[in-house]
Amino acid sequence: PGRFFFSPMLFQIDHFGFAEDRTFKQRYLIADQHWKKDTGSILFYTGNEGDITWFANNTGFMWNVAEELGALLVFAEHRYYGESLPFGNKSYADAKHLNYLTSQQALADFAVLIQHLKNSIPGTETTPVIAIGGSYGGMLAAWFRMKYPHIVIGALAASAPVWQFDNLVPCGSFYKIVTEDFKKSGIGCSETIQNSWAAIKQKGLQWLSNTFRLCSPLKSTTDVINFREWLRETWIYVAMVDYPYEAAFLQPLPAWPVKVICKYLKNPKLPDRLLLQNIFQAVNIYYNYTGHASCLNLTQTTTKSLGLQGWSYQACTEMVMPMCSDGINDMFEPQKWDFQAYSEECFKTWGVRPRPSWIPIFYGGKNISAHSNIIFSNGGLDPWSGGSVTKNITDTLVAIMIPEGAHHLDLRSNNPLDPISVLQARLLEVHYMKLWLQQHKRVAKADHTSLRVS
Amino acid sequence: PGRFFFSPMLFQIDHFGFAEDRTFKQRYLIADQHWKKDTGSILFYTGNEGDITWFANNTGFMWNVAEELGALLVFAEHRYYGESLPFGNKSYADAKHLNYLTSQQALADFAVLIQHLKNSIPGTETTPVIAIGGSYGGMLAAWFRMKYPHIVIGALAASAPVWQFDNLVPCGSFYKIVTEDFKKSGIGCSETIQNSWAAIKQKGLQWLSNTFRLCSPLKSTTDVINFREWLRETWIYVAMVDYPYEAAFLQPLPAWPVKVICKYLKNPKLPDRLLLQNIFQAVNIYYNYTGHASCLNLTQTTTKSLGLQGWSYQACTEMVMPMCSDGINDMFEPQKWDFQAYSEECFKTWGVRPRPSWIPIFYGGKNISAHSNIIFSNGGLDPWSGGSVTKNITDTLVAIMIPEGAHHLDLRSNNPLDPISVLQARLLEVHYMKLWLQQHKRVAKADHTSLRVS
Repeated sequence: PGRFFFSPMLFQIDHFGFAEDRTFKQRYLIADQHWKKDTGSILFYTGNEGDITWFANNTGFMWNVAEELGALLVFAEHRYYGESLPFGNKSYADAKHLNYLTSQQALADFAVLIQHLKNSIPGTETTPVIAIGGSYGGMLAAWFRMKYPHIVIGALAASAPVWQFDNLVPCGSFYKIVTEDFKKSGIGCSETIQNSWAAIKQKGLQWLSNTFRLCSPLKSTTDVINFREWLRETWIYVAMVDYPYEAAFLQPLPAWPVKVICKYLKNPKLPDRLLLQNIFQAVNIYYNYTGHASCLNLTQTTTKSLGLQGWSYQACTEMVMPMCSDGINDMFEPQKWDFQAYSEECFKTWGVRPRPSWIPIFYGGKNISAHSNIIFSNGGLDPWSGGSVTKNITDTLVAIMIPEGAHHLDLRSNNPLDPISVLQARLLEVHYMKLWLQQHKRVAKADHTSLRVS
Repeated sequence: PGRFFFSPMLFQIDHFGFAEDRTFKQRYLIADQHWKKDTGSILFYTGNEGDITWFANNTGFMWNVAEELGALLVFAEHRYYGESLPFGNKSYADAKHLNYLTSQQALADFAVLIQHLKNSIPGTETTPVIAIGGSYGGMLAAWFRMKYPHIVIGALAASAPVWQFDNLVPCGSFYKIVTEDFKKSGIGCSETIQNSWAAIKQKGLQWLSNTFRLCSPLKSTTDVINFREWLRETWIYVAMVDYPYEAAFLQPLPAWPVKVICKYLKNPKLPDRLLLQNIFQAVNIYYNYTGHASCLNLTQTTTKSLGLQGWSYQACTEMVMPMCSDGINDMFEPQKWDFQAYSEECFKTWGVRPRPSWIPIFYGGKNISAHSNIIFSNGGLDPWSGGSVTKNITDTLVAIMIPEGAHHLDLRSNNPLDPISVLQARLLEVHYMKLWLQQHKRVAKADHTSLRVS
């Protein structure tokens, strides 16, 4: 969307302990073409689980509003993702090397980076900073404002499921919203998917492997379990990126991809064989819209820019988000939330045990009304909206709903096909940011006046 | 002051990482004789660098106001002090074992403990909690409110030098206030101390050792440097505990100990020998008011209940408080703040390097106006008042000055000899706490009403 330059900076590997005193290079991007030195602002993207250049290229909103806010844009890469690897190619070697991959360390990186920028870029010393992020990055933006209100004057937390923890929301809401998206997008669509699970059980490994053009044929019952999980994830991902125009966020996709997919899933009563062939056509939209894929790969469900490995570790430590399905209110196979099994799996994979109550204890759960200046924006089509803040908490902790929006649509570039609701949301977001900036200017001026008087 | 019961609880050794998954027993004290189950409150003492029973016995204020506030009293011991040792007697073995001794870990302990109490003591689920602490514990109380406003509705931070970091206040203010205390307490007093430093240099090791009845005679130039440091610390400590009545906080002492000491230090023009003999008489008040000591010990400057070792480590990591003296505005030998030397000394002693900007970056430095409901109380005689908040920041971040008060006098039990200023301060503190409790009740009621309406 615009030119920016890379910059690495040295950070403590461990902000919260002193035995590990080494530093590492963290990457951040800066774009200053719209920055107004004295009257402007800094929009700070709180990087999430992936390559920061990819996020910067998918956060056109910041570029679109930069001129209006005279903003310096900063995109900070989250540690352990992209090129910001604390221990180089050993960063993921074991639990010891992964020990510094936490949200607290990431927020501390952001705080230190902003301090560094203010000390090193002339004219930024007193420039107000606004945090912006989406998804996990949206949680980070909100938490950054909560924990470091002296560093950011406000935060836009787009599609940030800050309440998808412990028992703050029902564990079934996520799959229910995915299902609703498919239900809304075509007659028979969710029912076809619902019926596919039983159909799969009737079919042999060979047949499934051929029909779904899998790169590695299924060889065992475990493989079939993974295959069904892969299908489940596919439906989730396509619901998340159900954008109103052609886009390539998780995968290159047509406009309204769920609708396109549902065209293949109109008849839930078909015999297993035909039903599953249709399911393949649907899945093929998500994995092969470009037509370049010669086979489908169960292990690569999204763009490589997303750090699925790192997120798997984070989900096994802090980011424990209980999910469940019942097959009645949703189109998925019934699956209870089984923390014990989850914990065992985490221990097997990463050698760590999750701590499910830590995030609510540390960040406040539903009891966050003491904070201020946070916008929680949500897409009505986004499965994550079920775990997010969808109603105003106070005058300054506000929620914005975008009924036609998928996962943080509001953070994307303006597009002629944008529904009105997202245009309104963006206007409202800018309105709040301007309020924060005015408020900041008033307070700064008052401080200055009282300094001169006294 | 009242009966209480001990209780240990298991805490994560590392709240901020998952590779170390072991737990340890932390001690806390509870007193429930004044607790009113439905209408009451919890007063939570954020333990600082020492044995929690000693602090509980020196925080009579909490016992005095317990009935009025229907309060359950909780005194939480700070990790690595008293009996709350994460690795038992190996806790201080090396930098690796000490790695979890940080303010962030301590605050997380407090948060988890309060969550645990609310889950386990029937009737406390919605009871509002107020944090109370003095000195480093006062910083913890303030920081606890800043970082966990969802857990404590407010904080009383008594004599909490939250600004004694980096270059937030002049490094000389601390020694200047010590000097003023001695100046105010007797003619010739501060001058006598000022002249003692040169006098010491004129005297031999043997003579000094005998005159000051040292348990271990001075043997080297390093020993004399330590001797002078010991004297310096003595003056600091006695200024800190310059209470209006007989008390035994750091040492058993008479009422207004600085005045008592200054009776021996009226004549700064005496020959070195006589001047130093008077200095000994003065020092002997601090170390031997009971008359039981047969000799003076350079290595034990205060009660053993204070964890000087742990504090030395904390001062070498997070708690870097720049101090300097110039011998003009204070009675001490001129000593610049030399961070490099300080850092080297820390590395030699503990194998760690201090990070002097971390505390201001993490806790906000002087930019804390986004927070609310914190009382910063200060004693005019307390050297630490120079690094504390002594003026209101907002309507809800308020400062209280106690001109005749030494180090957190307001937290001590009521005493017939209390100056009016501390009685007024305590009344004001209770007034603010009641405001917070009323505010909390209003909000809770409003939430309840809106829940019933919707």
